[in-house]
Amino acid sequence: MFEELLSSLAIKNENKIVLLVMDGVGDLPVNGKTPLEAARAPNLDRLASEASCGLLNIVYYGITAGSGPGHLALFGYDPIIYQIGRGVLEVLGVDMEMKKGDLAARGNFATIENGLITDRRAGRISTEKNRELVDIIKNNIQKIEDVEVIIKSGKEHRFAVIFRGSDLHEPLSDADPQQTGLKPAPAKAHEPSAKKAERIINKFIDEVTELLASEKPANTVLMRGFANYPAIKTLKERFELNCAAVATYPMYRGLARLVGMNILPTGETIEDEFNTVRENYGDFDYFFVHVKKTDSRGEDGNFEGKVKEIEKVDKALPMLTDLNPSVLAVTADHSTPCKLAAHSWHPTPVLIHGKYAFTDDAKKFSERECAKGILGRIPGTALISLLMANSLKFKKFGA
Amino acid sequence: MFEELLSSLAIKNENKIVLLVMDGVGDLPVNGKTPLEAARAPNLDRLASEASCGLLNIVYYGITAGSGPGHLALFGYDPIIYQIGRGVLEVLGVDMEMKKGDLAARGNFATIENGLITDRRAGRISTEKNRELVDIIKNNIQKIEDVEVIIKSGKEHRFAVIFRGSDLHEPLSDADPQQTGLKPAPAKAHEPSAKKAERIINKFIDEVTELLASEKPANTVLMRGFANYPAIKTLKERFELNCAAVATYPMYRGLARLVGMNILPTGETIEDEFNTVRENYGDFDYFFVHVKKTDSRGEDGNFEGKVKEIEKVDKALPMLTDLNPSVLAVTADHSTPCKLAAHSWHPTPVLIHGKYAFTDDAKKFSERECAKGILGRIPGTALISLLMANSLKFKKFGA
Repeated sequence: MFEELLSSLAIKNENKIVLLVMDGVGDLPVNGKTPLEAARAPNLDRLASEASCGLLNIVYYGITAGSGPGHLALFGYDPIIYQIGRGVLEVLGVDMEMKKGDLAARGNFATIENGLITDRRAGRISTEKNRELVDIIKNNIQKIEDVEVIIKSGKEHRFAVIFRGSDLHEPLSDADPQQTGLKPAPAKAHEPSAKKAERIINKFIDEVTELLASEKPANTVLMRGFANYPAIKTLKERFELNCAAVATYPMYRGLARLVGMNILPTGETIEDEFNTVRENYGDFDYFFVHVKKTDSRGEDGNFEGKVKEIEKVDKALPMLTDLNPSVLAVTADHSTPCKLAAHSWHPTPVLIHGKYAFTDDAKKFSERECAKGILGRIPGTALISLLMANSLKFKKFGA
Repeated sequence: MFEELLSSLAIKNENKIVLLVMDGVGDLPVNGKTPLEAARAPNLDRLASEASCGLLNIVYYGITAGSGPGHLALFGYDPIIYQIGRGVLEVLGVDMEMKKGDLAARGNFATIENGLITDRRAGRISTEKNRELVDIIKNNIQKIEDVEVIIKSGKEHRFAVIFRGSDLHEPLSDADPQQTGLKPAPAKAHEPSAKKAERIINKFIDEVTELLASEKPANTVLMRGFANYPAIKTLKERFELNCAAVATYPMYRGLARLVGMNILPTGETIEDEFNTVRENYGDFDYFFVHVKKTDSRGEDGNFEGKVKEIEKVDKALPMLTDLNPSVLAVTADHSTPCKLAAHSWHPTPVLIHGKYAFTDDAKKFSERECAKGILGRIPGTALISLLMANSLKFKKFGA
């Protein structure tokens, strides 16, 4: 109902929206300063001092968002309603393309001895070995009944699978005993409609186990997170937005693809990414630009490294601001405090820069300055509405 | 459920609430200042410095409220749930009184030639000509079947109609081909319950077209926005509030009437309006006082004019503060930035003054000072709860 109202107000115009996500950039003070406060970032600071600033409550007070829920919220999808299955995220994370009707799963290579699972990760085999094994599976198992099997290696013992065929449905239990010393646990359909998927998955496990019988230590597989491609309206359907995504990591390209964005090929550096926006600037209404390493340094607990990554973004920022988009927003999908070396629940700073954004007293793009901003502390899902409004893409509600 | 909870807490006492709505007063800075910041408004500033201040999110982040949704929110009605049909707003806007069961519509005089609509506005005939035509219709069409037809002129080619009789229901399509060069489009019932309304409306159009056959250029009518009087509980039913409205424009009197307020006759100036409050002060619990021109100057993009209107309100303000109401709140139904010369999505400043309002650091009634206020940024519909609480009209929830 509320989503419908927002859609009903959307209008198309030539104004451009650029959303720069500095993954996990929000942090906690160490020796009195957060990485954003410690960084020399004159371009971000100028932007903040001209913009409306605030804090985004990505999911809900106290909730630590994973990358999936975090990005869905930023894209305007309530992550509590749109829960993306773990298998789907795994498949997106290795850059596989999923279609409606597909069933995705994540897999582990594992060790079975005398009918019992003795190592759930097969001694964390090398990624190289993983690729060899996946090639063996690819060459021998293309179809099970009428279902196409598409498999791709991840890192170490991990891989992802798409089952593509008719009538494959959730919900299913994981095919994983969860501990060693137990017999393999076949997948189980939780509803009659999942029966065919149950059969196909368990045949797949049996066929792989037979195929790898002489391998050591990776001689079976555990399969988890079975999930269909989610039914989700695209941003084009919801807001008439023609969207493009620029991201160096597959997971974020996948999340963008999920909401109907066009994925633009790009390079490895921030400059490559910003350049990709410039080269394609005429062709889209909305650009999602994802910077990964702010999060990576947070996950490493590397404060100085995170400061450097922020400074790199700042240095390249004129490549975006020179485009003079109607709206430029900068934020994160969650915080990743170095102190925690993990994602956290702390709200993320946000700035919205544009001709009609109310300039407030925040003088710096940081947690504490943004807390003074005129936006206040707002739900993550509200960002899309503010981007639409500031680019004059919403008409008036009621007379 | 939530509405019911609030109602269950309401108690009656002698305390007075005065809500002063400065229509569209919120704005954006021009040369560093908004009209509220630029205005010399010592009375408003004193009030703000003694009050709890904040920002109201009238409908939702990024949503630009029309006057209808804006006022409903301020009165405590979720404008997403209570969507008032266009015909109803038109009828209220020309000061017609609507009753439960009535069906309202807006009309245009139009031109038909050889069976095709050639001008949807009949060359924007004068308001005077409009009145002549409406008189002809009034004199010839009082009833269709058992349905009373009540018609009133608007400006130029516009008029409003109330169909009053049994069994007249929405939903109906507009009787308007939307473009010239097409045949008239009769109204169509979207549900069987709207069949009688369909018949009456189309008979009305036929009878008017016959009646105006020799007129030029206004020889037919297009009818739109068919809507029943909304089912809405009054503020008396919800909160035991005996309410009065003081407004110089019919639309706002109409919106107030919709929620059960008593409409007090008043003059044209702010002083007239405030005087009306004084004269009727003993008879009501709650006064809604509407100042229109702050919005009008915003719509004109007239910054200096808006500043002057704010200063006029400020000058007259002691007429209200001298009454020493239990709670005096000042806010707007939406922002109308001069830069946009239109309503906008920006939150509106609000102050709540009273014996039990927490005095905060905001020293001025302005967007940026109110952003610092202790109320934070709150939904428009929450205002009524704060007015009730500050006048001690809510009892404790639970033991």
